[in-house]
Amino acid sequence: MQISELVTRSGVPLATVKFYIREGMLPPGEATGARRAEYTESHLERLTLIRSLVVVAGLPLGRARRILEIVDEPDDDVTEALGKAVDALVDGDAPSDDPSDVEEIYPLASAAMAALGPEFRRPTRHLTAFAQLDDALRAAQEVGMPIGRERLQLYARHIAAIARSEVGDLPMSPGEAVRVAVLGTTLYEPVLAALRRLAHQNLTTDDHSVSGL
Amino acid sequence: MQISELVTRSGVPLATVKFYIREGMLPPGEATGARRAEYTESHLERLTLIRSLVVVAGLPLGRARRILEIVDEPDDDVTEALGKAVDALVDGDAPSDDPSDVEEIYPLASAAMAALGPEFRRPTRHLTAFAQLDDALRAAQEVGMPIGRERLQLYARHIAAIARSEVGDLPMSPGEAVRVAVLGTTLYEPVLAALRRLAHQNLTTDDHSVSGL
Repeated sequence: MQISELVTRSGVPLATVKFYIREGMLPPGEATGARRAEYTESHLERLTLIRSLVVVAGLPLGRARRILEIVDEPDDDVTEALGKAVDALVDGDAPSDDPSDVEEIYPLASAAMAALGPEFRRPTRHLTAFAQLDDALRAAQEVGMPIGRERLQLYARHIAAIARSEVGDLPMSPGEAVRVAVLGTTLYEPVLAALRRLAHQNLTTDDHSVSGL
Repeated sequence: MQISELVTRSGVPLATVKFYIREGMLPPGEATGARRAEYTESHLERLTLIRSLVVVAGLPLGRARRILEIVDEPDDDVTEALGKAVDALVDGDAPSDDPSDVEEIYPLASAAMAALGPEFRRPTRHLTAFAQLDDALRAAQEVGMPIGRERLQLYARHIAAIARSEVGDLPMSPGEAVRVAVLGTTLYEPVLAALRRLAHQNLTTDDHSVSGL
């Protein structure tokens, strides 16, 4: 297809398409003449992925580019590729991967892990989510609402069940697995958060009194 | 205590304490002389709550003030107070509470609710979380990763179990329930998100292969 059709079908403005090509995020079309180039379905797919990352997931351009690089040249090891991609989602630098003093740097997350099941062993690298857990536990503690061991175990049990079903559905090719994992992490998180708020609302209305549960 | 002690014990700078008093978010101390005022433990608690909302939960000042108003004068009805408080957490205006054309405005969330259990009936007011669910489902659909009925039912089952335990632990007084609900919504959400990412990481490492689950 010509670039005009790519623009129409993707809904992405011409100037933006050209910008992604200049930035190396979208490959150029195949030249078919002095001023003409041919684009394929894979260009359209790539453009949809870029827009998902930038517009839907709201990632800054630099982080979207980093994820495209991982999709393009994933490690042979899916785990490693997934770890890098999810690290790239988070604000700021990923924490150091040196695990030697993890318990000192992340005391709350370390203590939490010790109380949880095998899905929650301390990671040996890609500590971003571990650092995020430590921050979140500290914030709750600071306002006098620490999360107790029982509550944490209940959270872990249900979240592990959710995560198991998600991982079970992951495609096997590393590039595709990274794409699904990155978008799934970003896009399904707000679904889970909204469902929790809706359940809270319904559970506190009169005809769903707490005692009736 | 004097204001200097309030500053020391809260860790909030003097200028910031005075600002909160001027803004009506923190009540003034009781005057004990021309230039002296006495502060109590309840001032310290209030200051901790303000800092939780502004610094820990990261709410803009206007939204923090709105929540303080609800804590101060909650409806007699806990549900109503909770609904208003959680509405105040979200960016932008809360959606209209007119439910007459809900299915037209939020088609994806409406369809999702129809597939789920009694914890997820469509709310009749305070539609913020409902709008959030509709947005999240649409975003997933747009990138070609719609959430199927089975996945949604699995999410709902586990999230409902989490929400039930949280609501069961809620204090009975409306003001205190609002405080706990607002902070719990804001502060425990990242805990759940971090646990999900950690579970993903562990479940995709070699010694926790998917087939072994």
